[in-house]
Amino acid sequence: MSNQPSGLLTLTDIGAADAPCCPPIAAQRIPAETAAVLAPAFKALGDPIRLQLMSMIASAPDGEICVCDLTPAFDLSGPTISHHLKTLREAGLVDSDRRGTWVYYRPRPGVLRQLAGLLSVEAPSSV
Amino acid sequence: MSNQPSGLLTLTDIGAADAPCCPPIAAQRIPAETAAVLAPAFKALGDPIRLQLMSMIASAPDGEICVCDLTPAFDLSGPTISHHLKTLREAGLVDSDRRGTWVYYRPRPGVLRQLAGLLSVEAPSSV
Repeated sequence: MSNQPSGLLTLTDIGAADAPCCPPIAAQRIPAETAAVLAPAFKALGDPIRLQLMSMIASAPDGEICVCDLTPAFDLSGPTISHHLKTLREAGLVDSDRRGTWVYYRPRPGVLRQLAGLLSVEAPSSV
Repeated sequence: MSNQPSGLLTLTDIGAADAPCCPPIAAQRIPAETAAVLAPAFKALGDPIRLQLMSMIASAPDGEICVCDLTPAFDLSGPTISHHLKTLREAGLVDSDRRGTWVYYRPRPGVLRQLAGLLSVEAPSSV
């Protein structure tokens, strides 16, 4: 499910799932169209609760985690956690499956890799 | 200049400027305190104009760029661009200096490296 208006690029459109989509920002200016696609992913990570949720999903030992294991980790209501998870999903950072009573979340490593590549900076040759 | 309330960790406090501060989110859950420090940096990048500005600053050939070269690149007023630049600076992503009439902006590569490290994911061993 996605709230991306049709006709716009999406994160998946820009690059293959496991390949960096875009040159690092330290290498060249991002085109406006690319920035429009990438910014929502950063915005989704720009909240402390979503960043923690994202880290719990990305580091889940089984490659996925049940919403029933995410919600108790926070002093927040189930609907609030679900809303944050929806934001992560709509930003293209996670996928989800409903199985029985619960929804299970798994990371999209290719998307995380694209974002990391975008922010990558060459290590200094000397300090 | 910073709008970080005193007493809170800052991006610089978490890690040395040129060393990753935090294990990748794919490795372990981010503590709440760390998420509170890192989220504003992602939030600052979560806007298409700021992401383009950040890329222009990070890729400036001289290591810095004048606001007088940033503003004409957008169909936005000077004050609007200045407000976005202030957000990037307060998030710890750029530094600035006023020299004469103009303000010059330069990236904080150590901070970008920290954010990239946080999102890094091991390459798949097979595809």
